[in-house]
Amino acid sequence: MSRPPSPASLPASKPASKALHKGQLTKAAIVDAALGLAAQVGLEGLSIGAIAEVMQMSKSGVFAHFGSREELQISVVNEYHHRFEQEVFYTALKQPRGLPRLRALFDNWMRRTSMEIDSGCVYISGAVEFDDRPGPVRDALVATVNTWQAAVKRAVQLAIDEGHLLPDTDPAQLAFEIHGLILVVHYEARFLKTPGAVDRARRAFDHILSLHLPEPANA
Amino acid sequence: MSRPPSPASLPASKPASKALHKGQLTKAAIVDAALGLAAQVGLEGLSIGAIAEVMQMSKSGVFAHFGSREELQISVVNEYHHRFEQEVFYTALKQPRGLPRLRALFDNWMRRTSMEIDSGCVYISGAVEFDDRPGPVRDALVATVNTWQAAVKRAVQLAIDEGHLLPDTDPAQLAFEIHGLILVVHYEARFLKTPGAVDRARRAFDHILSLHLPEPANA
Repeated sequence: MSRPPSPASLPASKPASKALHKGQLTKAAIVDAALGLAAQVGLEGLSIGAIAEVMQMSKSGVFAHFGSREELQISVVNEYHHRFEQEVFYTALKQPRGLPRLRALFDNWMRRTSMEIDSGCVYISGAVEFDDRPGPVRDALVATVNTWQAAVKRAVQLAIDEGHLLPDTDPAQLAFEIHGLILVVHYEARFLKTPGAVDRARRAFDHILSLHLPEPANA
Repeated sequence: MSRPPSPASLPASKPASKALHKGQLTKAAIVDAALGLAAQVGLEGLSIGAIAEVMQMSKSGVFAHFGSREELQISVVNEYHHRFEQEVFYTALKQPRGLPRLRALFDNWMRRTSMEIDSGCVYISGAVEFDDRPGPVRDALVATVNTWQAAVKRAVQLAIDEGHLLPDTDPAQLAFEIHGLILVVHYEARFLKTPGAVDRARRAFDHILSLHLPEPANA
């Protein structure tokens, strides 16, 4: 899965590739602006023209980096996924495998969700925009969602392997139930403006786990 | 909350109101067509022109019934809600109050969801379309969602009152968790096409209830 490198990760010390470097920086800046725009107007609201305006570039300047609107949309999906992985998954890897890591993963997710209350989530809005529109943008969205779902299942499996969750725990079922919490916290906090939605999601997460803990829940 | 009467509930036996009757039928037919269209293109995709085309009417003919696109959108939200209430809530009322009624409610919901896999849910797509767009359409959506949420909480409270659920059960928390299951089953079945999503949701519902049953779960 190719994605635009973030400026911080670019090999800035190679003078021979200066032009390439500048091109990559511009491309990354375009994707960053497009991500901000998509948060407001959805992936379907993105257009080369709108991005050119935000970037104060010509349309042909944007076209030089993205051959089509679709390519731009896919880059946005991949960049969103990249940031999501960084914030939610890679940070959780610092915790010991098993329940501590699974809890960290959910905590990170809730933290990110709290920040997205005002901007929206590309996985959620994208699913509504593309649920009945086959094509490469939908495929990119499904692929990224499948990737994080596999990571959640893996985290649950590790918790089982470590003996932190009962051996008969079904990772796919647990991942399904956790996904429900993510969706409902977005819906209630962002759309209904229900106070305390994140706290309710945390409580629900403890409820879900409590059914799979080896000893009686001590939460 | 005013809504267009369904043809079945019209006072067909009053000859004096024949013209009025015909107008109501036409209005109901327009809302029905708009509901079908909204399922495909979203509430935001609705327009007087598109409906006129579907109905093979003139634009001014549609305008005679709905003064604005917004009014049409609100009528669609209310009609969707009306049907949802009929299928999910009123049917559940035939079951004895308490757990049987709560289970029937969830079962009806799952049945409806299974049928909506191909058409989508106005509550879910509408939330994404209108989450950051204040106005009367958003208000109508929020009002209808609040209405069914209150009904779920009431059903949980009745189950507590009947002694079917533990007295310390929090109806709002349970309603929140059930809402998560509705959202995830839509997402996984409709967008990801995950096989067995409805079965997973039913299992998760049993998990949720099991924490609040007076005696050890016998499901």
